[in-house]
Amino acid sequence: MVDVVESVDAVRQAVAAGRRQGIRIGLVPTMGALHGGHIELFRECRAESGLVVVSIFLNPTQFGPGEDLAKYPRTFDDDLRKCADAGVDLVFAPTLATVYPRGTESTFVEVPGLSDVLEGASRRGHFRGVATVVLKLFAIVGPDLAIFGQKDYQQQLLIRRMVEDLHLPVVVRTCPTAREPDGLAMSSRNRFLGSKARQAATVLYRALSRAKQAVDAGERRADRIRQILVESVGLETSVKLDYAEVVDARTLEPLGDLGKGCPAVALLAARVDSTRLIDNMLLAE
Amino acid sequence: MVDVVESVDAVRQAVAAGRRQGIRIGLVPTMGALHGGHIELFRECRAESGLVVVSIFLNPTQFGPGEDLAKYPRTFDDDLRKCADAGVDLVFAPTLATVYPRGTESTFVEVPGLSDVLEGASRRGHFRGVATVVLKLFAIVGPDLAIFGQKDYQQQLLIRRMVEDLHLPVVVRTCPTAREPDGLAMSSRNRFLGSKARQAATVLYRALSRAKQAVDAGERRADRIRQILVESVGLETSVKLDYAEVVDARTLEPLGDLGKGCPAVALLAARVDSTRLIDNMLLAE
Repeated sequence: MVDVVESVDAVRQAVAAGRRQGIRIGLVPTMGALHGGHIELFRECRAESGLVVVSIFLNPTQFGPGEDLAKYPRTFDDDLRKCADAGVDLVFAPTLATVYPRGTESTFVEVPGLSDVLEGASRRGHFRGVATVVLKLFAIVGPDLAIFGQKDYQQQLLIRRMVEDLHLPVVVRTCPTAREPDGLAMSSRNRFLGSKARQAATVLYRALSRAKQAVDAGERRADRIRQILVESVGLETSVKLDYAEVVDARTLEPLGDLGKGCPAVALLAARVDSTRLIDNMLLAE
Repeated sequence: MVDVVESVDAVRQAVAAGRRQGIRIGLVPTMGALHGGHIELFRECRAESGLVVVSIFLNPTQFGPGEDLAKYPRTFDDDLRKCADAGVDLVFAPTLATVYPRGTESTFVEVPGLSDVLEGASRRGHFRGVATVVLKLFAIVGPDLAIFGQKDYQQQLLIRRMVEDLHLPVVVRTCPTAREPDGLAMSSRNRFLGSKARQAATVLYRALSRAKQAVDAGERRADRIRQILVESVGLETSVKLDYAEVVDARTLEPLGDLGKGCPAVALLAARVDSTRLIDNMLLAE
């Protein structure tokens, strides 16, 4: 089985021991409910680090009042098995009181510009919670390398910007979105989907793929690409689109035309029954 | 002369070299315009660290629109001499673009509760700027120990809380306020005072001392102690009081009566001519 520690001191001791041996420390922050996407992150971390630390902490501050914190899947024993199988060296599973010793209304970090659009517009306060908990985890663990998934595109961009702005001494790596055979992006929330909803949810990937095909075929107008996304998702009447946007992949700013030297990304959020899903695809580099 | 570096890489290299030798790294963040109070901080840092790093960076984000950033004293050559004389090992003097690579409207940190009272009420945004620049300096330098002066009482409290909340791996030490022979707290802004104003400014220390004497003589009512402060400062008609408060020394929350187990601090801010000065004194531990 994998080693599990709860306290700041214990994880720091393990990291310090590794560091004394000149080993590179890798961290994969998770909220548990691990799936194949996480396993990919662990594999990437394993390839680049001598000590692979996975944090499992269901962070309340990134959930809004009406959101699914209460029903978010908690699968700790299964998570530990998956970590062990993936060759993770250490699981850091702190309590709420460890991460937020003076409660959740304490010191926070904010990344202006990237926090209030797209997911940040739909989920007020979400990215303040994300940035703050990631900063804490970086401060506690002190990794050389941290790995995130492209599935949460805005999140990894925001963390990169926070790291750059604050000069945090950590390298951030983003891994491609892991997908089911039918294209559905792997997500902890997929287990909420009934079989009909599970089938309908694949429309997100199909919509993104169509947009990408259009770009590959020469389409350059962002509004036209956006229209493809909206129309494609619209084919599944059980899927309620939250947003579909084509934006600058570096800044998330709106795009007129796709052009050289300006990478673009298509981002989708939608509700399938009561489950909210997101997905994205890079359209041009 | 003391070594001076401007870049993140250079200061990190020096710190990494020290760390490889098992040396404790101390940091004293300053905005330059060094005076005897800073020298005390350097001495304390020297006593507790193998490598003493002093940062000199006039941080614009902690100054408000109408404040004295433009006329804040810039005495870099003299600062370097003082650092050399005090046995400082390394001065880190970054440019604005180094500290704020994407401009000053970028990622920031906020410490709720301590940021919006007293100095934070008089100087909106001040403590966001302070917390953010200190977090950046900690991330860049990576000190084991950081030293601040008690003169900026609220600042050192806020930094301690930020460090605690974010689990930053740094020990914060606070040194007693250094004073001129007549009691005036040493400050970079004292050099703005003409000779009459310089004389009048000593009323702050006299007021705090009277309050302390009253407490030592048995006074326990915070409002009565506050009245002593206001009346004492009022004796100098050229001094315009901004605030005089007696608060919980740990939280800055208002106090009714001073009591056992509740340390109290008296805090003053006032304008002498166009120069704004602050001072404070612990009343009971």
